[in-house]
Amino acid sequence: MARRAALVGASGYTGVEALRLLSRHPDIDLTALCAGRMAGRPLAEVAPAFTGVAAPPLEPFDPKAVAAAADFAFLALPHGTAQDAAADLLAEGVRVIDLSADHRFDDPAAYAAIYGEHRRPGSLAETVYGLPEHNRGRIAKSRLVGCPGCYPTSVILAASPAVRAGWAVGDVIADCKSGVSGAGRNPGAGTHYPETADGLHAYKTLAHRHAPEMSRNLGGARVHFVPHLVPIVRGILSTVYLRLDTPRTLDAARALYAEAYDDEPFVHVLPAGAHPDPRHVRGTNRCHIGLFVDGDLLVVQAAIDNLGKGAAGQAVQCFNLMAGLPETTGLEHTALFP
Amino acid sequence: MARRAALVGASGYTGVEALRLLSRHPDIDLTALCAGRMAGRPLAEVAPAFTGVAAPPLEPFDPKAVAAAADFAFLALPHGTAQDAAADLLAEGVRVIDLSADHRFDDPAAYAAIYGEHRRPGSLAETVYGLPEHNRGRIAKSRLVGCPGCYPTSVILAASPAVRAGWAVGDVIADCKSGVSGAGRNPGAGTHYPETADGLHAYKTLAHRHAPEMSRNLGGARVHFVPHLVPIVRGILSTVYLRLDTPRTLDAARALYAEAYDDEPFVHVLPAGAHPDPRHVRGTNRCHIGLFVDGDLLVVQAAIDNLGKGAAGQAVQCFNLMAGLPETTGLEHTALFP
Amino acid sequence: MARRAALVGASGYTGVEALRLLSRHPDIDLTALCAGRMAGRPLAEVAPAFTGVAAPPLEPFDPKAVAAAADFAFLALPHGTAQDAAADLLAEGVRVIDLSADHRFDDPAAYAAIYGEHRRPGSLAETVYGLPEHNRGRIAKSRLVGCPGCYPTSVILAASPAVRAGWAVGDVIADCKSGVSGAGRNPGAGTHYPETADGLHAYKTLAHRHAPEMSRNLGGARVHFVPHLVPIVRGILSTVYLRLDTPRTLDAARALYAEAYDDEPFVHVLPAGAHPDPRHVRGTNRCHIGLFVDGDLLVVQAAIDNLGKGAAGQAVQCFNLMAGLPETTGLEHTALFP
Amino acid sequence: MARRAALVGASGYTGVEALRLLSRHPDIDLTALCAGRMAGRPLAEVAPAFTGVAAPPLEPFDPKAVAAAADFAFLALPHGTAQDAAADLLAEGVRVIDLSADHRFDDPAAYAAIYGEHRRPGSLAETVYGLPEHNRGRIAKSRLVGCPGCYPTSVILAASPAVRAGWAVGDVIADCKSGVSGAGRNPGAGTHYPETADGLHAYKTLAHRHAPEMSRNLGGARVHFVPHLVPIVRGILSTVYLRLDTPRTLDAARALYAEAYDDEPFVHVLPAGAHPDPRHVRGTNRCHIGLFVDGDLLVVQAAIDNLGKGAAGQAVQCFNLMAGLPETTGLEHTALFP
Repeated sequence: MARRAALVGASGYTGVEALRLLSRHPDIDLTALCAGRMAGRPLAEVAPAFTGVAAPPLEPFDPKAVAAAADFAFLALPHGTAQDAAADLLAEGVRVIDLSADHRFDDPAAYAAIYGEHRRPGSLAETVYGLPEHNRGRIAKSRLVGCPGCYPTSVILAASPAVRAGWAVGDVIADCKSGVSGAGRNPGAGTHYPETADGLHAYKTLAHRHAPEMSRNLGGARVHFVPHLVPIVRGILSTVYLRLDTPRTLDAARALYAEAYDDEPFVHVLPAGAHPDPRHVRGTNRCHIGLFVDGDLLVVQAAIDNLGKGAAGQAVQCFNLMAGLPETTGLEHTALFP
Repeated sequence: MARRAALVGASGYTGVEALRLLSRHPDIDLTALCAGRMAGRPLAEVAPAFTGVAAPPLEPFDPKAVAAAADFAFLALPHGTAQDAAADLLAEGVRVIDLSADHRFDDPAAYAAIYGEHRRPGSLAETVYGLPEHNRGRIAKSRLVGCPGCYPTSVILAASPAVRAGWAVGDVIADCKSGVSGAGRNPGAGTHYPETADGLHAYKTLAHRHAPEMSRNLGGARVHFVPHLVPIVRGILSTVYLRLDTPRTLDAARALYAEAYDDEPFVHVLPAGAHPDPRHVRGTNRCHIGLFVDGDLLVVQAAIDNLGKGAAGQAVQCFNLMAGLPETTGLEHTALFP
Repeated sequence: MARRAALVGASGYTGVEALRLLSRHPDIDLTALCAGRMAGRPLAEVAPAFTGVAAPPLEPFDPKAVAAAADFAFLALPHGTAQDAAADLLAEGVRVIDLSADHRFDDPAAYAAIYGEHRRPGSLAETVYGLPEHNRGRIAKSRLVGCPGCYPTSVILAASPAVRAGWAVGDVIADCKSGVSGAGRNPGAGTHYPETADGLHAYKTLAHRHAPEMSRNLGGARVHFVPHLVPIVRGILSTVYLRLDTPRTLDAARALYAEAYDDEPFVHVLPAGAHPDPRHVRGTNRCHIGLFVDGDLLVVQAAIDNLGKGAAGQAVQCFNLMAGLPETTGLEHTALFP
Repeated sequence: MARRAALVGASGYTGVEALRLLSRHPDIDLTALCAGRMAGRPLAEVAPAFTGVAAPPLEPFDPKAVAAAADFAFLALPHGTAQDAAADLLAEGVRVIDLSADHRFDDPAAYAAIYGEHRRPGSLAETVYGLPEHNRGRIAKSRLVGCPGCYPTSVILAASPAVRAGWAVGDVIADCKSGVSGAGRNPGAGTHYPETADGLHAYKTLAHRHAPEMSRNLGGARVHFVPHLVPIVRGILSTVYLRLDTPRTLDAARALYAEAYDDEPFVHVLPAGAHPDPRHVRGTNRCHIGLFVDGDLLVVQAAIDNLGKGAAGQAVQCFNLMAGLPETTGLEHTALFP
């Protein structure tokens, strides 16, 4: 029996990607579609790819109406604005999967240190960090999931086996390369085609607010995070440098990561020598990992789609757990090639 | 009950795209996967996007083995090499959907004038041009379908309503812009990234061999065809200029095209004033059409994915007809956005 | 002896390109640099490529100050705002090269029909259309030059030999493909990287305001103009379709264009069979032309840099004429390859 | 008085870039142009950007003919083939600037460990590493200069001030991102547009042969080098991670780098907080540097053009020193923007 689900925030990039996944999910009955400024507009104007595709009308958000229509709500709202929506929906008995940054910390102080005071701190008491590879059991039982950021997803998946095994000592260096869709749908000088194509640069070096989220989910390790903007549309490639407690072999590292990920449906450790590329996971919930060792330095490369495993795909994966469905439902597809 | 199907030629771009569609088609049991040089290699080497995805092994092509395993065969072979495979499979009772250029003409002389002598002309007697919007009934009953070229698909869909209505007089000008995947998977100077990115150019101006195929399927109209290579990966945008018998209004043109396409599941005439973009049909079997009129000049713009509606998607659409399935089975998905 | 020149409007794309050319021009002494909102800011903030490069400070525009400092002024201002600047500078005795659309028509009615009433119609009486290949003598003597639009430059250079020879009959079809810098420096949804890369589309089909400018400079021929946005940064490729009075040979067409352009320093007719690509003229004042014939259809392809021969390069070429310098001064460089 | 110079190897990317610079250099008389397979072909076929541009004919390489025509020779030959050309030219009294990897080590054993036995080890005794910022005096007097690799140039410029000051302790991590032209002009699967655009990946992680060259020119520091291929045509951005002996402030780091580079004409330390982007140095000999500090971690970002400061530009800079010319002659231009 299909679960009734609502999507709140359907005009940003994570929202449209969630819509794409939800509208094709075999066990979801998409019963409500909410938008802000775009409410009332034809969906094909918001996302021309949906021309001729059936979908609920874009309506203004109303918690009671959503609760009447749906048992689950996906929130693809701007950071800061999901707080009220989530709390109001929880109060109505709707289970919430939040794609924004609003519920990624269960500690109000930790949240406030990065984003400022949380307006609905009560929600934080029950939020679960939506990384199934770490929190599968808790996600299944939760009423509120805060889906990880795109950068943290890739860095945590890359580093955590070595960190958890106690191999990694000292700081973590995360040199990440992101596609431009990570900057969202609002145009600006930094995403203007003529100044973005055929160039690349770091930004917010050592000062990006995703670093504490990485640290918190890597046992408190200090993370030096340098994000770069590269001229691709979707995708993140994170190159993570980990200092090991002692020189290790590539075989040992591969065995460690195999143990961590061989049973994971979406995390694939590539063959020895292979390098992951986000183009091969684009549009999917997959993560490709490459491992390289030189003495006591472990280099882990992880590729995800920032809007897939880094946002909407991961949200659907969490939903599947919450709904008691096979975890891969609606997420089995592969990337376009080429 | 799922139909047993084989894919012959799984390492080129149309082959991998066909594999992507077939492996997710709900009514297909993909029972054989054949490749030439790549036979015996792991699929993930051929297409890293398939890392961790279950699929039949890549085996050398053997018509009898394919016939034992499958009732339908998709041929994604280089032009010229599909002739023997098709004839041999037909002889074994396998129904064939050919994505190459080998069976797009049912007249040996017309074929020979473009591609040289056909080695198995017997096949041409029963081949059906695989454009469902024109040949739905014949495709359903056929044993051999020759799928249209990518450029012809877009130009024919753009021009044929006006041509068939007798509105178009004189020559057709088809100014087409194609992504680089249209040139195939073999690298060359003309597709080398440093000399392809951030530039564009026409090629084979007025001398491309797809022009006669367009002409033949547009009632014999003379077609001036100028293909351009643009720096996108997938997609074709065809801008077609048609001289009308008399000045017409945009409303009249829109009514004519609505009549032709309103019942078509994959051809969408966009709202007045909207311009199609291949990025919105990428990875799909859809075609977006825009209409513009200035007196007696009709400009029709049609966007498709050269590997989707221009190749593998169309092949699946033909298969659905041949197998008696709903025509949209396995093809309902929308393009990624962005 | 170097000529004293001012650049008014140094922060838009045509302005920065003009700055790049003027600051390296051997016979120009760049004495003033004016900007609006960016006045007072370091140049390297406006254009990081100029980090460490000496240039005059960015100052607010003042006609008297410019007149005190310079004998020539290049105006790289938004359309509509160059009118007052030009008239005020002319009144001070400064010779003006306007890169905007404000002085491309010498007829107030023709101007008004497209852009609305001109505020300083007196200027139009003396403006000269800044296409040296047509107006060399008049430009040399002029006080005010209105540089052609980027699209018209390419289409007029492509079509005019055939039009002037009386070969072209009937309408002209101009299917043009432009890089995104043609849309200017202000970011918007239509130039946002994630929605611009890996796609392409026409816009303002048959309704772009450059069409009348083309028509006026092609003997009044009706021009059907369809501009397309392609994912390159700089460059225009115009594919122009001309119906001939009678079937012609390629040799005859090549002879006609050779006669027109063999003595032109910046217009190069490519060898037979070669196709122009804007990447090979990027950053230059050059125009590459390819010719193709099929009976009575002549297809001319012209590639320019929209900011070079389509704007700042052409402005410098006009300046050289006005200043009595060799026409190629400061413009001899070739495009980067690759 | 202009110096007579020859360019040997004019059809690869470094060769065409050298040709672009040499043909516009005010103090160079380009007297010979040598090519292998392309000898005898029109230059415009090799590089369409040179259509209509005067240049010497492409001739086969003959050391005596070059010696008769020129006092300096630039070698833009494939690695391994420059050895004989250089030795033969030196024997004829020609001073040689080698852009290949053949003369970057003055120690035959060090060379052999990476590239195999050197066939003309005598040359190594007098080769000078062509990084003017380090070796200005020796370059000026040399007969043979081995220009640094593109990756080493950026990493050495980024790291050496901290290394030389004794600040950097432990290993250097160099996470470098290169445009695709760095892979050269020969097409291959790894540079095929459809599989290169809209993706990125590392390659030869911890195993690239440029690492020893970096190490040798950074006082023997161990360098962990991870090169990445990003979808831009030209340019390298190197993000270098240096562990400091003690926590330092950003101001202290900026003072250190200012001391190193304030008098350098081509190395620009950007304002605090600014991030370098290779698009702003494209086509130039410039290097933009950004500095960031977090306690005892120094992050240095350096952007160059791999074909400019990373190859042909640096070669011209070395030539200027050898010829006793101002070091910036022929290299003053700025990058296109956008």
